[in-house]
Amino acid sequence: MNTLIVYAHPEPRSFTAALKDTAVATLGALGHEVSVSDLYAEGFNPVAGRHDFETVADGGHFHYQQEQLKASQAGGFSAELRREQERVAQADLFLFVYPLWWGGMPAILKGWFDRVMAYGFAYADGKRFDSGFFQGRHGLIALTTGGTPERFSPEGVYGPIDDLLYPHRRTMLEYLGLRIAPTFVAYATPRVSAAEREAYLAAWAAQLTKLAGEIAATPAQRAAAPTTTTHWATAA
Amino acid sequence: MNTLIVYAHPEPRSFTAALKDTAVATLGALGHEVSVSDLYAEGFNPVAGRHDFETVADGGHFHYQQEQLKASQAGGFSAELRREQERVAQADLFLFVYPLWWGGMPAILKGWFDRVMAYGFAYADGKRFDSGFFQGRHGLIALTTGGTPERFSPEGVYGPIDDLLYPHRRTMLEYLGLRIAPTFVAYATPRVSAAEREAYLAAWAAQLTKLAGEIAATPAQRAAAPTTTTHWATAA
Repeated sequence: MNTLIVYAHPEPRSFTAALKDTAVATLGALGHEVSVSDLYAEGFNPVAGRHDFETVADGGHFHYQQEQLKASQAGGFSAELRREQERVAQADLFLFVYPLWWGGMPAILKGWFDRVMAYGFAYADGKRFDSGFFQGRHGLIALTTGGTPERFSPEGVYGPIDDLLYPHRRTMLEYLGLRIAPTFVAYATPRVSAAEREAYLAAWAAQLTKLAGEIAATPAQRAAAPTTTTHWATAA
Repeated sequence: MNTLIVYAHPEPRSFTAALKDTAVATLGALGHEVSVSDLYAEGFNPVAGRHDFETVADGGHFHYQQEQLKASQAGGFSAELRREQERVAQADLFLFVYPLWWGGMPAILKGWFDRVMAYGFAYADGKRFDSGFFQGRHGLIALTTGGTPERFSPEGVYGPIDDLLYPHRRTMLEYLGLRIAPTFVAYATPRVSAAEREAYLAAWAAQLTKLAGEIAATPAQRAAAPTTTTHWATAA
């Protein structure tokens, strides 16, 4: 089994980094192949633009999805995107590990979706949700927050964490066709004690071990993996 | 009255650009001062990091909010962030104009929030929501989507647009203390006819005109505007 961890935090000694490191160790010990897209360490550029492409569909009006489709058909993605798309194509399990900033993903991770998960490569007309390219594969979000659980409760000022993560789960992971496991949330990480920190990491490792066992027990039913060289037939 | 439009689209001839241009023309004709942060044209960098700061709170462990607080107290933001923060400090009305990508903002706009709306500058302990620094000021989202209204309905695959925008409204605009006006959504813009396009723009201009009138009729009650040189007292 092959896991891709897409990880977004600027500080290697952060709690978010510890979640990533725990996932690498836990899944590695279970015999997984584990790759990490460490977006900060790799200097990933999150800004979508013409630099995404070596091909050109329309040199005048820049329509992003049209350029993505052209690149997916002609192998025209930039080297940075090809590298990420190769990692994506090989993964059976995706872990997205990030801090909640402004109720959402850090920009560097949002841009990873915008650019890497391109039209024609990661989805296409009629290839979304239950018919998505990622059917038979699995996804999971692991999150750190500054706020306490109370602030993310139904009575809290931010509202339920599930409401904040709805776009991440529905229009990102499920959109691709991934089967999503329960989100792991480490609340108020700047405020936790060393013991609480260890308890979080132990719970996270246990959740990953359980998930890996469940996935291994599931009959393989992975859809054809998208690759950068496949020419998708679309109605566009 | 001073309006800041924060605009995120790579193509000047896009429908999203037309919404921005219509807002500039409409509010300008009403006598507003209008500034535009054209994030793509200005090459805005959305990646949070040490390059945000000329000051250093902790040269070892990088804690982003701690560095933001230090910079807000000591005037230590980078030139790019100071420019944006000066625009923010002067605005009475904020328009966020962007396409919905992956159910959220383009990364370049998410990073504008991450970096410009810094701890100590845009919010602080006890300075959020009803006690936020932006109390007495106004905010509005104008959005383009590829999907049809049906897809964003309660029965649609994406679910209600309000559910997708909940983090944008609650943990971004309301978090700051802005009073938010109804979101303007131009659905399925890649598919609309020229007549539908004109109808969208006319409706958008009418909504802005109405809002400007309502704001002008509201007694001024703007909270002290944050500036990059104010030293906020916090409990942090």
